[in-house]
Amino acid sequence: MLPVQLIRKKREGHALAETEIRAFVAGVTDGTIPDYQAAAMMMAIFFRGLDDAELAVWADAMTWSGDVIDLSRVARAKIDKHSTGGVGDKISIPLAPAVAACGVAVPMVSGRGLGHTGGTLDKLESIPGFRVDLPVERFAELVDELGVCLIGQTARIAPADKKLYALRDVTATVESLPMIASSIMSKKLAEGIDGLVIDCKVGRGAFMKTIERARELCGLMRAIGTRAGKRITCVLTDMEAPIGRTIGNALEIRESIEVMKGGGPVDTRELVHVLGAEMLVLGGAAPDQAAGRARIEKALADGSALEVFRKLVVAQGGDPSVCDGGRKSALPVAATREDLTLAPGRIVAIDSEALGIAALILGAGRRKKEDEIDPAAGLVVDAYLGELVEPGAPPHVVLHHNLPAGDGRLAHAREMIQGAFVLQPADVPFPAVRDSRILEVIR
Amino acid sequence: MLPVQLIRKKREGHALAETEIRAFVAGVTDGTIPDYQAAAMMMAIFFRGLDDAELAVWADAMTWSGDVIDLSRVARAKIDKHSTGGVGDKISIPLAPAVAACGVAVPMVSGRGLGHTGGTLDKLESIPGFRVDLPVERFAELVDELGVCLIGQTARIAPADKKLYALRDVTATVESLPMIASSIMSKKLAEGIDGLVIDCKVGRGAFMKTIERARELCGLMRAIGTRAGKRITCVLTDMEAPIGRTIGNALEIRESIEVMKGGGPVDTRELVHVLGAEMLVLGGAAPDQAAGRARIEKALADGSALEVFRKLVVAQGGDPSVCDGGRKSALPVAATREDLTLAPGRIVAIDSEALGIAALILGAGRRKKEDEIDPAAGLVVDAYLGELVEPGAPPHVVLHHNLPAGDGRLAHAREMIQGAFVLQPADVPFPAVRDSRILEVIR
Repeated sequence: MLPVQLIRKKREGHALAETEIRAFVAGVTDGTIPDYQAAAMMMAIFFRGLDDAELAVWADAMTWSGDVIDLSRVARAKIDKHSTGGVGDKISIPLAPAVAACGVAVPMVSGRGLGHTGGTLDKLESIPGFRVDLPVERFAELVDELGVCLIGQTARIAPADKKLYALRDVTATVESLPMIASSIMSKKLAEGIDGLVIDCKVGRGAFMKTIERARELCGLMRAIGTRAGKRITCVLTDMEAPIGRTIGNALEIRESIEVMKGGGPVDTRELVHVLGAEMLVLGGAAPDQAAGRARIEKALADGSALEVFRKLVVAQGGDPSVCDGGRKSALPVAATREDLTLAPGRIVAIDSEALGIAALILGAGRRKKEDEIDPAAGLVVDAYLGELVEPGAPPHVVLHHNLPAGDGRLAHAREMIQGAFVLQPADVPFPAVRDSRILEVIR
Repeated sequence: MLPVQLIRKKREGHALAETEIRAFVAGVTDGTIPDYQAAAMMMAIFFRGLDDAELAVWADAMTWSGDVIDLSRVARAKIDKHSTGGVGDKISIPLAPAVAACGVAVPMVSGRGLGHTGGTLDKLESIPGFRVDLPVERFAELVDELGVCLIGQTARIAPADKKLYALRDVTATVESLPMIASSIMSKKLAEGIDGLVIDCKVGRGAFMKTIERARELCGLMRAIGTRAGKRITCVLTDMEAPIGRTIGNALEIRESIEVMKGGGPVDTRELVHVLGAEMLVLGGAAPDQAAGRARIEKALADGSALEVFRKLVVAQGGDPSVCDGGRKSALPVAATREDLTLAPGRIVAIDSEALGIAALILGAGRRKKEDEIDPAAGLVVDAYLGELVEPGAPPHVVLHHNLPAGDGRLAHAREMIQGAFVLQPADVPFPAVRDSRILEVIR
């Protein structure tokens, strides 16, 4: 069948055959199917969807459009974690070494930040010398030796997804659940994993605004993974406020190290404990979630997670002094810190996206792919939902930046931050805020 | 708004604002909006449609994407006819001179054949010397002097439609009613007309397979035309069998001349009478349809329509001997005629599309834009729905061609023709066939 016939078939709501999907994805990859036909197909799929069988084939075709990493040398179970993206989401950094310390290998291929959410690669690169562009062979070696390695996506991993993602971004077809699911899963399945824990963010600051939509996406990802013979667990977590207290690359590495020393903010620790427990269960290193959680907590408390991280930093070319913290740390520090105090009242909503953009404006992220990042820039946010801000309270946000005084970006960032907090008078009743970020686990 | 935001807005089912539509169409025309974004928008419109206000603006923006012919010098009412395309549809050729002979000007910009339907331009070009590429100024002069001129679309007429049509063709978005309606109307509104009669073909051999869909399309075209201040009448006509007895360019000119001499097949004459009557009423040259029909019949019977056609042929560089018919005619004649006889039985269905393709195979049409046409090639079909074919009956189809004996195309064409006629035993009851092609008139 010609590409135009395949587009028509999908447009009419019919299921595409396996050979048809493979031919279409191959044509997109090698460029014989032009962008305008791929765009029309994406929009037809937006409206018509893909059934479970089509979806599994589509994701498989995208996975095999490039290289699939061979981790057969690694004897341990290989379990990765993927987050659908949040503000202040540094969870991978303490989580991967903690899980590795408990005996499950974590082969993690991460992305960069774009827009208001940060990227694990950018965070790691704030560690002086740290390289995320290791060759795939070295990646496999390190996963085998240390139980963990964190690299960036290579051009050879799921090239079909790279093309389609760029096209979806400019044709208003990003928000297609089957395309989101197959995009995520094709990259993860190309890592050579045995199982995957998906942290699906839900709420104002997340891509999935409602739990119903998050459940639907998780269902699709689980269907793809299961058909590919992988064990998949989805954890739906709340994204109504930034994760932890830091937004910004070096700042988030600092906070991650606190967690690997058994400290850190409660919400961040909870996510590491829960996601880690699920990873250990999937990897067969814990009989149940409670036992898994206990093992993760121990690895953080006894320094074994940090020890794995220290080896990882050294192996990936980074300066291990970052693990020591304080003045000894080689992590960059911003020249200027500015306090920002909120007006009195009760904090009833926090716009994570606005805070993410404010950090980006200070230099922590990119507006365009080519933009350079200031690793030291970002925000420390010490405010929680439901908190009562009293007059004369200590500052709730500290801006870290290297911008000259009077730079217009500073005023812009401050304005974004002020607008991110919705306050109401102290005497207006406000319901109790839930004290866990975990909304639901789908095993 | 960025193009991607406009696509998203339409995808979500919202109406686009006038400025947004104009910006999008302008961007498509000047190439600043790439094909993949236009393709995504076409597919979003396929699913979400356009409301009446959007549609009128869209068509208007396409009309004004190029030149709009200035016919202000023509004092008479200017009324055109458009057909959505049928097999053997030569109606424009006798109709336009007949209407002009009755005092209404017909500024007709026609298309070429592609696929199984022929094009008026190709038919006219079978007249030796006939030019369809006159400059727009000469077109206006002839419409003024003779009351009629028939030319081809220039590159400057509705260039936005040209781009979008080519794109829709390869992205499975041709079958979008608002896009069909705005494509047709933008080209017609660029002709500088006062009114338009639309012959909307319905049935197996037509683009609109059902009367419901034809009504819907006509509603959209009328909405566009009315908002542009034009008078629009839609005539829904049956397309369950080819029109008249000829399919092929010179053959159809011959049949058209028969009609302009007051003869010709009944169905062809009926279409000219009815469509002509509606054009005269729209142009204010007849008080009602009956009076209009009488005037058209008279113009055909008394030779005044043929006289206008003769002047038109001369003015457009053609050999007027074609009007004399018989041996004196300069129309090309095929070297070979081959008879084809049907098996005995009752003809219960005729696949016009298959007959159109058979004529094309013999040389009457193009498979690709670059293909050359044999003006003499085609079919004479003497068979009607419900006809009882007796053993030993005279041939029902005569193939006209210049192919060498044994050419594979001949066998292919013969096979297509045989397959185009569905016959059933004479004793199986068959309902009476309607004796008019007019299904419905929407004024």
